[in-house]
Amino acid sequence: MGGKELKLRVHLSDRSYNIIVKRGSLQQASAHGDFNRKVLILSDVNVPKEYIQCLQAQCKQAHLFFVRGGEASKSVQDWQAVLSHMLELGFDRGDCVAAVGGGVVGDLGGFVAASYMRGIDFFQFPTTTLSQIDSSIGGKVAINLAGAKNVVGAFHQPKLVVIDPDTLETLDKRHWANGMAEALKTGLIGSSEVLQLMEEEDIEKCYEEILCLCLRYKKMIVECDETEQGDRKLLNFGHTIGHGIEAALQQHSKEEVLLHGECVALGMLPMITDASLRARVKTVMKKLHLPLSHMANTQEILPYIFSDKKRKGDVFTVVRVQKPGLGYLDTVSYDIICKMLGD
Amino acid sequence: MGGKELKLRVHLSDRSYNIIVKRGSLQQASAHGDFNRKVLILSDVNVPKEYIQCLQAQCKQAHLFFVRGGEASKSVQDWQAVLSHMLELGFDRGDCVAAVGGGVVGDLGGFVAASYMRGIDFFQFPTTTLSQIDSSIGGKVAINLAGAKNVVGAFHQPKLVVIDPDTLETLDKRHWANGMAEALKTGLIGSSEVLQLMEEEDIEKCYEEILCLCLRYKKMIVECDETEQGDRKLLNFGHTIGHGIEAALQQHSKEEVLLHGECVALGMLPMITDASLRARVKTVMKKLHLPLSHMANTQEILPYIFSDKKRKGDVFTVVRVQKPGLGYLDTVSYDIICKMLGD
Repeated sequence: MGGKELKLRVHLSDRSYNIIVKRGSLQQASAHGDFNRKVLILSDVNVPKEYIQCLQAQCKQAHLFFVRGGEASKSVQDWQAVLSHMLELGFDRGDCVAAVGGGVVGDLGGFVAASYMRGIDFFQFPTTTLSQIDSSIGGKVAINLAGAKNVVGAFHQPKLVVIDPDTLETLDKRHWANGMAEALKTGLIGSSEVLQLMEEEDIEKCYEEILCLCLRYKKMIVECDETEQGDRKLLNFGHTIGHGIEAALQQHSKEEVLLHGECVALGMLPMITDASLRARVKTVMKKLHLPLSHMANTQEILPYIFSDKKRKGDVFTVVRVQKPGLGYLDTVSYDIICKMLGD
Repeated sequence: MGGKELKLRVHLSDRSYNIIVKRGSLQQASAHGDFNRKVLILSDVNVPKEYIQCLQAQCKQAHLFFVRGGEASKSVQDWQAVLSHMLELGFDRGDCVAAVGGGVVGDLGGFVAASYMRGIDFFQFPTTTLSQIDSSIGGKVAINLAGAKNVVGAFHQPKLVVIDPDTLETLDKRHWANGMAEALKTGLIGSSEVLQLMEEEDIEKCYEEILCLCLRYKKMIVECDETEQGDRKLLNFGHTIGHGIEAALQQHSKEEVLLHGECVALGMLPMITDASLRARVKTVMKKLHLPLSHMANTQEILPYIFSDKKRKGDVFTVVRVQKPGLGYLDTVSYDIICKMLGD
């Protein structure tokens, strides 16, 4: 623990909040937020128990709820189970939800907090690279329905995000790389320094530097466009095709299933319009041990792409990149998407 | 049809919207809102088919979904069924939901619209006194969970509310009076003219006058306090005990079940601190043929009151009235609530 602290404030009028980035910050959560009330700590069975206990010790009245983990936990059934549990425990509007873990518990916990009594306080304690770099900030919370990713949800900003890079020590290599795919995304759409660091440096060693660059970029985007009317759509780079691959692979054998970031990285490639940049990105993906192929075929992927939130009729708003750090919005037809998948 | 039109604008920055009050306005819906897209028309089996057909004819692509009606339809199951249906039909972020009916379809449809793809446009076509006077405006949408009223929901403002008093012609007397209980509430907490009209005039004849007074008052409250941080709590007058009675009676025989407004009226009585005013209110309730008693006992009601959203620990924020038009917030202990129920 110890180390230097970065405090970023996301300015969203009465929904403003702080992001604390510091080694050991999980142990100091109560110095930054009010846990002197009922706290539903939501986590999954794979999150190390010491992180849960560490937060629990700082709460007046903590109640634990564990989901099994993975995308399957972002279900209506799990959401309802958490809400019912809170109701039974007498949670009121002044109580709160704290998600400790990765993107799945963050998304699920966030939608629980958004909808319980029309919205209560929500705290994020991301313990994976994916959730630290991307999903824990910005207020997008959601569950899945009928295999379609994040189609049911809300914009519900957290009250506080506590990022403790020490918690990554227990993260396996594959999940570590998974989150770095979102950092790579940031490097391509908005913060070219991230791409440069990934190309030139030992990525693991400069994790905190990359993390802070990504957070600063995302904070700026969210402040400008909280509910994704315009620029925030840039953050969906790689996600239209990536979500399709991710959903399609849920029907495959366990060995063939890919993680969210892995799919996003694969989904970015066809959206990079410059061949030499695409080659550079592939090199970084290799350096990160991210997969460069997947086992879903076009016919499996297409139905999921059709249920993408960025579709309007037969037209999709996608993000393309020609030069590092300069993502731009483009509209493409369903046919073009099909062609991209075929290539 | 025809008659004079009242257009009220609810000012909530980028969530502002119009309320149109006019006889025959259901037939002119497309003049006020954009239905040139996919429209999920949500209604219940008891709503006259001609209202549905009237709106359907004005939509580019209408899809109908009927729930069975009553509080039981405000369930997670019904909510999920509507969302799944929309997903199958390929609804995207640019499409919308229109609720035609009473408070139940408005609350359910609103929460569907709030959560589908993190929020899409929502239109209200209230066809009951309750929904015209109260529930269709203000953006409170919700479903029930484990018998607890409205514990899962959101604030999601409609895009437009079209109130056609002609649709009340098919409403039975009991449901007509049910909504007038919410008007009586408005008369007590904020707009004493409503109480005066109800005491002195033929209530049915001055319905539109009462409706407009109620809408103006609620509009003002919602504009000042959209998410119920302060003054909006006044609108909960009668609801703490009322919701408790309503939920408890769901376990009784069908004959003993009371409607929402009926329960709210009963819930207001113990919160009126002046005996002579209480007597006046009872007289109006009799004039409206609203019940003055119910069949739930204190022990049945209390657990539901404990799950009330206005509870914080053991303290409840309730609304009291001493003089007509002057509701005020008060905090009372659980014991006091118990005593009120016993009296």
